[in-house]
Amino acid sequence: MMEFEHVKPADIERRSFEIITQELKDNEIEIEERYAPIIKRAIHTSADFDYADNLVFSEGVLEQAIAALKSGATIVTDTKMAWSGINKKVVQKLGGKVECFVADEEVASAAKEHGTTRSVAAVDKAFRDYDNLIYVVGNAPTALIRIREIMDETGKKPALVVGVPVGFVNVVPSKELIINSDVPHIVARGRKGGSNVAAAIMNALLYMIDETRGM
Amino acid sequence: MMEFEHVKPADIERRSFEIITQELKDNEIEIEERYAPIIKRAIHTSADFDYADNLVFSEGVLEQAIAALKSGATIVTDTKMAWSGINKKVVQKLGGKVECFVADEEVASAAKEHGTTRSVAAVDKAFRDYDNLIYVVGNAPTALIRIREIMDETGKKPALVVGVPVGFVNVVPSKELIINSDVPHIVARGRKGGSNVAAAIMNALLYMIDETRGM
Repeated sequence: MMEFEHVKPADIERRSFEIITQELKDNEIEIEERYAPIIKRAIHTSADFDYADNLVFSEGVLEQAIAALKSGATIVTDTKMAWSGINKKVVQKLGGKVECFVADEEVASAAKEHGTTRSVAAVDKAFRDYDNLIYVVGNAPTALIRIREIMDETGKKPALVVGVPVGFVNVVPSKELIINSDVPHIVARGRKGGSNVAAAIMNALLYMIDETRGM
Repeated sequence: MMEFEHVKPADIERRSFEIITQELKDNEIEIEERYAPIIKRAIHTSADFDYADNLVFSEGVLEQAIAALKSGATIVTDTKMAWSGINKKVVQKLGGKVECFVADEEVASAAKEHGTTRSVAAVDKAFRDYDNLIYVVGNAPTALIRIREIMDETGKKPALVVGVPVGFVNVVPSKELIINSDVPHIVARGRKGGSNVAAAIMNALLYMIDETRGM
């Protein structure tokens, strides 16, 4: 049998981050210190060191994201899984909330009416209802495409787009649409990502503000 | 700008699986045909081809898992994220349900009383309450350790354990405890896994039964 490490439950996350930090060093993978909490948390949630290379941060995004969260931004996710993974206690402390509209009846009927997907109709609703908006995409490239369309058409911009859909069809170019825009963004370039990574990125931002973790 | 593929929303999943199948072939990665729907769905949810190598299936597990699901097994997950990702419409059609006890007050107070974690107390509750039980772990190695302890102490066994916690501390040996037991299991050997992968494995099993997908 393999050996277990004797680590108290409360210390497992800290110990995990130590291991990640050490392995990045051992493998001579350099990451920017200011982005380290986000990169390491994406690795922590996936055990996939590719996130040391594939995360793209727009200039100034940390300051912009933190300002939005501190002023009670509404975080809208494209899936219930991403919604589930975000630490809502911390968001609530900051006066914000976390929403997911993909299963809403209003969104379902709007999608039907306009011959589009629920992911797209959910983006429309979020832009309509919220000014201080953080849009988090872990699954649907069509959500990123729609965000870019609305920005181009109206000039409205979310405070932050987390663009980390995972997949094989239209995922890669949908992310480039965001990277090549002027919206503050954190994007996982390439195919990788997912609801877990989306939630991890949001939690890393939240824990930069609230070091007590609200847990 | 990169090119988008013109694929109808309803066809994106099928097209994604085609790409995965082609790339496995191009890279001469062989997988067992009977496990292909599960392996490909784990790759689909992560864009990580490591799942072609790291998934371990106990002999007969597909037949055992499908029989349990068809007879209305209760699926218990260790996290709300995994719970969110499982297709509950299909489970309900089969007469089963999906539960997650980690946020239950009863479980929280049992954990406090016994000086253990909520993940462990949730396993205790599931074994106590359900005979036809499928336990799905995407996050907590302590849940797998506890499952093995109860099996060794009582001889009670779940119908299936999906053991795919992700992480850096005690994750690897906790999975070996399950692989080296006689419980029907699907385990991601090594560090990788997660709530998304856990849900993907369960959905692949459900779609083996219900090809209409209940969607």
